[in-house]
Amino acid sequence: MAKVAVYRKEHFNAAHRLNNPELDAATNEKLFGKCNNPNYHGHNYDLIVKVTGEPDSRTGYVIDLKLLSDLIKTEVLKKFDHKNLNLDTEEFKQLNPTAENIAIAIYHILRPKLGNHLDLQVRLYETERNFVEYPV
Amino acid sequence: MAKVAVYRKEHFNAAHRLNNPELDAATNEKLFGKCNNPNYHGHNYDLIVKVTGEPDSRTGYVIDLKLLSDLIKTEVLKKFDHKNLNLDTEEFKQLNPTAENIAIAIYHILRPKLGNHLDLQVRLYETERNFVEYPV
Amino acid sequence: MAKVAVYRKEHFNAAHRLNNPELDAATNEKLFGKCNNPNYHGHNYDLIVKVTGEPDSRTGYVIDLKLLSDLIKTEVLKKFDHKNLNLDTEEFKQLNPTAENIAIAIYHILRPKLGNHLDLQVRLYETERNFVEYPV
Amino acid sequence: MAKVAVYRKEHFNAAHRLNNPELDAATNEKLFGKCNNPNYHGHNYDLIVKVTGEPDSRTGYVIDLKLLSDLIKTEVLKKFDHKNLNLDTEEFKQLNPTAENIAIAIYHILRPKLGNHLDLQVRLYETERNFVEYPV
Amino acid sequence: MAKVAVYRKEHFNAAHRLNNPELDAATNEKLFGKCNNPNYHGHNYDLIVKVTGEPDSRTGYVIDLKLLSDLIKTEVLKKFDHKNLNLDTEEFKQLNPTAENIAIAIYHILRPKLGNHLDLQVRLYETERNFVEYPV
Amino acid sequence: MAKVAVYRKEHFNAAHRLNNPELDAATNEKLFGKCNNPNYHGHNYDLIVKVTGEPDSRTGYVIDLKLLSDLIKTEVLKKFDHKNLNLDTEEFKQLNPTAENIAIAIYHILRPKLGNHLDLQVRLYETERNFVEYPV
Repeated sequence: MAKVAVYRKEHFNAAHRLNNPELDAATNEKLFGKCNNPNYHGHNYDLIVKVTGEPDSRTGYVIDLKLLSDLIKTEVLKKFDHKNLNLDTEEFKQLNPTAENIAIAIYHILRPKLGNHLDLQVRLYETERNFVEYPV
Repeated sequence: MAKVAVYRKEHFNAAHRLNNPELDAATNEKLFGKCNNPNYHGHNYDLIVKVTGEPDSRTGYVIDLKLLSDLIKTEVLKKFDHKNLNLDTEEFKQLNPTAENIAIAIYHILRPKLGNHLDLQVRLYETERNFVEYPV
Repeated sequence: MAKVAVYRKEHFNAAHRLNNPELDAATNEKLFGKCNNPNYHGHNYDLIVKVTGEPDSRTGYVIDLKLLSDLIKTEVLKKFDHKNLNLDTEEFKQLNPTAENIAIAIYHILRPKLGNHLDLQVRLYETERNFVEYPV
Repeated sequence: MAKVAVYRKEHFNAAHRLNNPELDAATNEKLFGKCNNPNYHGHNYDLIVKVTGEPDSRTGYVIDLKLLSDLIKTEVLKKFDHKNLNLDTEEFKQLNPTAENIAIAIYHILRPKLGNHLDLQVRLYETERNFVEYPV
Repeated sequence: MAKVAVYRKEHFNAAHRLNNPELDAATNEKLFGKCNNPNYHGHNYDLIVKVTGEPDSRTGYVIDLKLLSDLIKTEVLKKFDHKNLNLDTEEFKQLNPTAENIAIAIYHILRPKLGNHLDLQVRLYETERNFVEYPV
Repeated sequence: MAKVAVYRKEHFNAAHRLNNPELDAATNEKLFGKCNNPNYHGHNYDLIVKVTGEPDSRTGYVIDLKLLSDLIKTEVLKKFDHKNLNLDTEEFKQLNPTAENIAIAIYHILRPKLGNHLDLQVRLYETERNFVEYPV
């Protein structure tokens, strides 16, 4: 049967700052400008998870979007929602929480939870005007 | 000349229930939860039709989006808008009207109406947070 | 202290048909056109509840929007979400479920649950292009 | 001449935590839940400023929206954008930065900058689903 | 019976320039900047028409939104859609087509078409970030 | 390192008419209908620029979106914003400014400004319901 892509949109609110701990303060300030504010700023992140596969002949579902929503809530939102990404998460203790790196991290959190017959792609909106997608 | 994709967004409002007539009531209730309500529920479906091809050198159009809009209205909205998908349509008398199956059905309605030099893809929003795309 | 209005947006998906049981079929068909389809159609209803009052000096809240969200879920969404408004609800067994009447019904469901020091207004989107507000 | 309302939408990204410094930690945690996270979380705030008055007969403008936009940028965004509201601003050193209190603060920042012939109202979206308006 | 407000959203695309024919070119250029471009620029205008009244006891409608939509199309969109407001319309031959003036003009076009038992308000979006409302 | 796509959304407002100068007036009127209005009409164009590449290991950025935004403003918006595309731009003096042709033109403006290690795609919304993408 032909493949279909299904999408589920969720959101979370988090604080972060852009900062590479391996660089000095002046370089970080130059690279990241106001996003480097040591006291953090924050975003309403919109997260769209795309799962591609063949619809099940019994249900007509690629994946039950209620289950996908629950999976995202359990695995991603519980970690990131109402958190400080730099201070409160394992993923970004050392890694700079750019939108690119957050999307890659979310992909690696969700990928093992989905069967191999399903493809996965993550789109993350940091703002309405700035967003990223992984993998391409 | 290089190919361009053009998109037209339309919408329709319909009632449906998720139910596989080949399964018993208890199984359907377990698989589809509140979406299995025998009295139906409904959605504002947003439909985005993507057509890809080379722009015509005379018009600069891949396809006149007014014509594409009229085609969607005549072939798709006339069938589905303000209808009960399970009861009022041929397509879903036997087939479970999941978003996946509706998108596939719309693709097969529109595909023969477009020339072979054009590619077609359908995106269907069941809600702002749940949507599907076919083919991938 | 000066009053502030706070708003919470929720949504539900429901089937309905517009039909006045006191009128005959021909009159209903003439008045409501395709919205009178006896097999129902449906909508994604967006509901915005506005509560106006003085912020509490201790919390800075007019009302905790988490509590307001829970109230809307318990009192309104549980009744209407994934339901057939004409068949599954007490409110619209006899009353025509126009957007106007649904908004008034929601107002009367929520009004007794809020303290008298708070004002209440309901906005209901039947589609992105058709919406209503009560009271004015 | 009759009055017209004009609106300008701007946005800013900020970190905050909900916390009343006059209350103990347990009470704050109980009142504000995950919004009380001591490491902060954040939002993309959408700000809509409404100015009401008679259009100028020469320009047809109530107020030049380019000037209003510049005023909001200079007076509000410069203070709040990419900042930690609790740590980086005078307004919320002692005051709990709920949406209600942020909207009231923005009103008091902008009010003296507009002529007395103009009325002012502020709407602030903390998320797409939670927003406030002041004055009412 | 209590009053309800109903809203219908429509849109039109038009060219315009901001220019007061009673002022000289230098003053117009100073007042309106790039909006004064003699070759025009343009917008996708979103128009929201609000009608307030008591729902009819037979239909449950304040006004049939299909009729309101047709009225807006016949009276407003036919005049303004895909037109140059300065050159193609009677309303703005002498009057500067600011958002304020367009909203007032639309109000005066629609007001006589609605019964006296109904109140009317017009909201006009020139862009997502700039919009106006009349009357207040 | 794996590739990530990053997106930046900008917008501009412009007047245009659809007209192929090599065709006679009757043919142009037949092909383009009300879009052929000799006095022009206009749009709020939303432009989404997609850049794909490997995130830089030092910054975590594929490209600094502030730089991408500045590039779009300098190279594209300065040319097209508040302009008449047919009269004020070199690109559309002879070429019909359909959405397809505008997207292709923007691609060719931006392509040389980006390093060869980066892929580029342009999406252009003429209205919320009509949009195009190049290349495919």
